[in-house]
Amino acid sequence: MATSMPRSPLAPAGFPNLPVIAGVRFATVAAGIKYQDRTDVMLAVMDPGTAVAGVFTQSSTRAAPVLDCQTKLGGATDAGAAILVNSGNANAFTGKYGQDSVAEITRILGDVTDIPVSRIFTASTGVIGEPLPHARITDRLKALSGQLDDGAIKDAAHAIMTTDTYAKGAGCQVQIAGKTVSIAGFAKGSGMIAPDMATMLVYIFTDAKIEQSALQTLLGAQADTTFNCITVDSDTSTSDSLMVCATGASGVNVTNESTFCEALHSVMLDLAHLVVRDGEGATKFVEVRVTGAVSNAEAKIHGLSIANSPLVKTAIAGEDPNWGRVVMAIGKSGAAADRDLLCIWFGDVLVADKGWISPDYREEDAAAHMQGQDLVISVDLGLGTGKATVWTCDLTHGYIDINADYRS
Amino acid sequence: MATSMPRSPLAPAGFPNLPVIAGVRFATVAAGIKYQDRTDVMLAVMDPGTAVAGVFTQSSTRAAPVLDCQTKLGGATDAGAAILVNSGNANAFTGKYGQDSVAEITRILGDVTDIPVSRIFTASTGVIGEPLPHARITDRLKALSGQLDDGAIKDAAHAIMTTDTYAKGAGCQVQIAGKTVSIAGFAKGSGMIAPDMATMLVYIFTDAKIEQSALQTLLGAQADTTFNCITVDSDTSTSDSLMVCATGASGVNVTNESTFCEALHSVMLDLAHLVVRDGEGATKFVEVRVTGAVSNAEAKIHGLSIANSPLVKTAIAGEDPNWGRVVMAIGKSGAAADRDLLCIWFGDVLVADKGWISPDYREEDAAAHMQGQDLVISVDLGLGTGKATVWTCDLTHGYIDINADYRS
Repeated sequence: MATSMPRSPLAPAGFPNLPVIAGVRFATVAAGIKYQDRTDVMLAVMDPGTAVAGVFTQSSTRAAPVLDCQTKLGGATDAGAAILVNSGNANAFTGKYGQDSVAEITRILGDVTDIPVSRIFTASTGVIGEPLPHARITDRLKALSGQLDDGAIKDAAHAIMTTDTYAKGAGCQVQIAGKTVSIAGFAKGSGMIAPDMATMLVYIFTDAKIEQSALQTLLGAQADTTFNCITVDSDTSTSDSLMVCATGASGVNVTNESTFCEALHSVMLDLAHLVVRDGEGATKFVEVRVTGAVSNAEAKIHGLSIANSPLVKTAIAGEDPNWGRVVMAIGKSGAAADRDLLCIWFGDVLVADKGWISPDYREEDAAAHMQGQDLVISVDLGLGTGKATVWTCDLTHGYIDINADYRS
Repeated sequence: MATSMPRSPLAPAGFPNLPVIAGVRFATVAAGIKYQDRTDVMLAVMDPGTAVAGVFTQSSTRAAPVLDCQTKLGGATDAGAAILVNSGNANAFTGKYGQDSVAEITRILGDVTDIPVSRIFTASTGVIGEPLPHARITDRLKALSGQLDDGAIKDAAHAIMTTDTYAKGAGCQVQIAGKTVSIAGFAKGSGMIAPDMATMLVYIFTDAKIEQSALQTLLGAQADTTFNCITVDSDTSTSDSLMVCATGASGVNVTNESTFCEALHSVMLDLAHLVVRDGEGATKFVEVRVTGAVSNAEAKIHGLSIANSPLVKTAIAGEDPNWGRVVMAIGKSGAAADRDLLCIWFGDVLVADKGWISPDYREEDAAAHMQGQDLVISVDLGLGTGKATVWTCDLTHGYIDINADYRS
């Protein structure tokens, strides 16, 4: 359980002070779905007019709540909206029963909040393949909806944790057209609870005013360079969900507004990094920068090949500047590379220079960089202008402890 | 080094008694390339008329010897042929110098053996990015070629080891047209020596008579269901090489001869399994059987997604029948799957039945299977007739030890 795991050495000092987002209120409750003595259900309720956008796991075995959410994006925004999340049970691979649980939760929540079922989004994270004891949730929905508080975002971030070792929040405020626009969000992942897989859930709220279709487009684009550029162990959850809700309460219309796009990107990137920093067993935060690829897409393929390689990740854990494994990961990626144009840096140290070890390379220089907690591996392919940056963590005994040893 | 690693718990009792292959002789020497007090160069010389086929790593950063070998397949077979392999240095990512090393070794070996350079194949396995001290090899080629012995295949298997914990050999004899045809081969992998990556080298010899082009076609097809169906950690070496040499000394022509094809397949599969059984840190040998896929190719994608998943592999290490992770690996593979048709077995225990946990499932039954050393995970997708079987091992603390801790 979350509370028994030591806090990640890469964790931030604490949960940030986040701006209150007008038009959004939160409530949490301890429903005893699996965990005892902690909150495990989170409700967010948004005012009428809120645009809701989302991106979800591509898994072909995605969970019932994900399938339900995907049908509900893009509807009319004149009514209110709600997000209900439980931890402790993923409601995944639960067949017809799982769909019934979603239907029952959204129906009863609709009754107690007067929000149409078509505007109620849910997510579940925890054990797979066990029926969700949804009555423990529905029994508490009336009480929960009576406790909504616009200042409770930190409590919300805690309630959706599984084996996360810390709650993850990020936010910012920017000035647009002389007014303040606020963004605040929270995430969970990549904790693990047997017999489960890591699930990433992210909820971001803003008082900006933006059309749903524009928000959906923006979210998709921003996800490609933030959450879709992180990896802990290359495994994809059946439940990954990322939603952004724009209440419009600031009165600031932000369609195509670059200040807003950058602010949203910054919050998303902060949350994505916080997920990596809580990667199972992680002791190093690693940024992999790829330049000179044939395209941005090919740069990302190379970056993820490096970031997902067990041999690269174990070398990082061992503080070993093992650039041969980076060469290997580039070679196997399937994207274009020319061995004799390839340059590799560990931090600022040029290791490999156009297909061979750099004549000025001294292993002690690279080894010194590897001893840090935040590392950068840079690769230039020398082929074109494509570039991408991805983030990962190392692969340690802690990962094996968490995923092999805890349950048996 | 190999000698310091404990023998894999999955190792066979010993090296098998292999048939002598008429027309092939072996010699080995301790050249001190990196290791001390052990052989590290292997020479195999084949009689004129030998057909040589090979398949090699697809890496875009493949090593100099691989690039050289690939240009030499398919030439005339009237002259003799030779294979020279060194361990301790991979001659990979060594630029022009690496190509010069290959040229120098093959030129001098041609001089001392009277075999044309176009029929001399080399491979190197060991440290990446360091220049190969090739004079240590070339200085010994004359003596080496004076010690050739048709019974020295076991010595040959030992000389190409890096951190393999045992030498790997397999062979068989079959009767075709009233005559005996023999096949014998050896392999190395998936040992590791920092700062290296696992390399798989495989050499198989037979006295069957077969055209080079037919042998090449057969080898490619057989590799797809043997060596291309194993994975230890999803990382692909810059040096992987698999060669088959047919001397024809038996006088038995085997083009399209099913007994021979099956015998070769059996030797290749035995060697492939021996590589997995020496996987770094392995404590379990795992067969993943996928049926009911849209095609054989899609079945293999699902199989490799399961076999490469760190979460599946750590669950196996923990003897945890964590079928939710198998569901996850199928979902993320990218190949077609329908959650509500999916069935999963651990051994003979039906775990998941058409999209949900089997009503008869008792976790203690599956847990009992997981405690064995040789495990079977079966998946039926219920979509079509495509099928594939792949083999892997578990992901343990031993893997982290070998790849993170040994060098630093």
